[in-house]
Amino acid sequence: MESVKKLINGVESVVPDALRGLAAAHPGLRVDVENQIVFRASGPRPGKVGLVSGGGSGHEPLHAGFVGYGMLDAACPGEVFTSPVPDQMIEATSAVNGGAGVLHIVKNYTGDVLNFQMAAELSAEEGVEVASVLVDDDVAVRDSLYTAGRRGTGATVFVEKIAGAAAENGAPLAEVARVAGEVNARSRSFGVALSACTTPAAGKPTFALSEAEVELGIGIHGEPGRTRSTMRPAGELVRLAMDAIHEDLPVTGDTLVMLNGMGGTPLIELYVAFADVAAYLAEKGATVARSLVGNYVTSLEMQGFSVTVCRLTDELTRLWDAPVETPALRWGR
Amino acid sequence: MESVKKLINGVESVVPDALRGLAAAHPGLRVDVENQIVFRASGPRPGKVGLVSGGGSGHEPLHAGFVGYGMLDAACPGEVFTSPVPDQMIEATSAVNGGAGVLHIVKNYTGDVLNFQMAAELSAEEGVEVASVLVDDDVAVRDSLYTAGRRGTGATVFVEKIAGAAAENGAPLAEVARVAGEVNARSRSFGVALSACTTPAAGKPTFALSEAEVELGIGIHGEPGRTRSTMRPAGELVRLAMDAIHEDLPVTGDTLVMLNGMGGTPLIELYVAFADVAAYLAEKGATVARSLVGNYVTSLEMQGFSVTVCRLTDELTRLWDAPVETPALRWGR
Repeated sequence: MESVKKLINGVESVVPDALRGLAAAHPGLRVDVENQIVFRASGPRPGKVGLVSGGGSGHEPLHAGFVGYGMLDAACPGEVFTSPVPDQMIEATSAVNGGAGVLHIVKNYTGDVLNFQMAAELSAEEGVEVASVLVDDDVAVRDSLYTAGRRGTGATVFVEKIAGAAAENGAPLAEVARVAGEVNARSRSFGVALSACTTPAAGKPTFALSEAEVELGIGIHGEPGRTRSTMRPAGELVRLAMDAIHEDLPVTGDTLVMLNGMGGTPLIELYVAFADVAAYLAEKGATVARSLVGNYVTSLEMQGFSVTVCRLTDELTRLWDAPVETPALRWGR
Repeated sequence: MESVKKLINGVESVVPDALRGLAAAHPGLRVDVENQIVFRASGPRPGKVGLVSGGGSGHEPLHAGFVGYGMLDAACPGEVFTSPVPDQMIEATSAVNGGAGVLHIVKNYTGDVLNFQMAAELSAEEGVEVASVLVDDDVAVRDSLYTAGRRGTGATVFVEKIAGAAAENGAPLAEVARVAGEVNARSRSFGVALSACTTPAAGKPTFALSEAEVELGIGIHGEPGRTRSTMRPAGELVRLAMDAIHEDLPVTGDTLVMLNGMGGTPLIELYVAFADVAAYLAEKGATVARSLVGNYVTSLEMQGFSVTVCRLTDELTRLWDAPVETPALRWGR
């Protein structure tokens, strides 16, 4: 334990230990610790499209914290910062299928994409209709250490919530997939790191950042962004992030905004940054119609923030507002 | 900005900037940025007891994140780790009074206690009936840097939620105060720090902790606990915390448990520790009837955890389950 000052019982047992804690805290979940799959305790609902997501651990509450009514049916956590394997996804897909097919929500990282593709093919061979949506909202870099194309980050929360509401309403698979794709297409993210994070297995920070530096466009595994910059006031960092988003897809109209901590940022500082985000949007004539401020897609104890903006439509707003009951998002029930 | 790597726009403007962000994110709140008071936007409900709390900033979401239906009517944030002043409390008390009186929920820190006492006296002179409940659940130390007697920590969340539900149900002031006192009497907490935190004004950590050390019984401002210890596995740290609680008030029956991050602890690690808490309770024959796992009473970016256990009654469970709609706790509506 000397080399890693973390609240864990051993490097190898982090994920199963955390899954046991998740099960103890949330009776609405059924947790298969051995196979590392988190389900709704209520099981599949006949005729409802099932939603499965997954990805490396270390980003909590993503994804297991979004399993429940109105959102995911199952989540497959991998080891820390490591893709889950096809077996997890296949088992989850089969278990949540209520006869109306299953949507895979996949963040665009090479391992996740390949494994979900294999799982989708094998599930289809077993007779489950599967559709997939790829989340690739991060405008920071075109390709990166873990990804061909854009990385998937904060928009995943929006996709899981909104597609989950559509599925709960009884929409067919093609329609749930369409709305999921639309949310992704209308969403953009950008992240800024003030510090690195340390995976239990590595025992040392994923990258080095001096006291005077920040990483602009940071990835959720600490992979490099666009550039290093000197530390600046929150308002300037927010402007850099929002400019990157706005240049890619102009912010306009009613927006859904997430100001996401990365696990180690004080909440008071996230609210400081959110004030700057709201001011930026007002300056561009856009409106904060709905928002989340807090830790939703984390990178262990990394400090910094990411901001995700989705251009809402009436349909997306209605689906966002629909009831949800998960460990990390809960309203209307 | 060189000396403090924080997501802020200036040391002096942290609290008002965060309050502007809070207002932008939560339309259900009315935020008086100048006077530093956060109200429900809906105003006082005639005949309902008003609930006011407050304390130093840097512990978010406490207290402003608990303003809303079923919980607080107003919160008065002070500067970081500094008590709010009587003027804030008097104005909040007057504004939330719906004619049925106002309950002050006060964490046991000398500044908070003195200022709330003064505010209660002056409000009474203005004709508002005021009752107070003192929260002092932290078993770690008898007196400390900021406190005569036990410190108030995690139980504050339980008191605010349960007293808030009683008030929402129309209970009279004496009854709301009684239930608040009962929650405090049945709750105990203990905290462990793996790292210190840095206030914006100080610009350096509040205390020094080596890579091999933890502070057992840490206070929410980083004030000393019982003792330093070498770093240990989560299960051992949890056992030390739970033993301290159990020796003071044996854990038994149905419990409400909060496993609280301190702002900088990865959520995956909090779930690891929660599994150990649940195992400890099971070993003692107690049950996790309700729980919270996450950041509820933080100390900026401090790493570590605190655990709070409340021995439930049927009445307290019913009030805990009642609908709530605040930025940080929301269910049933």
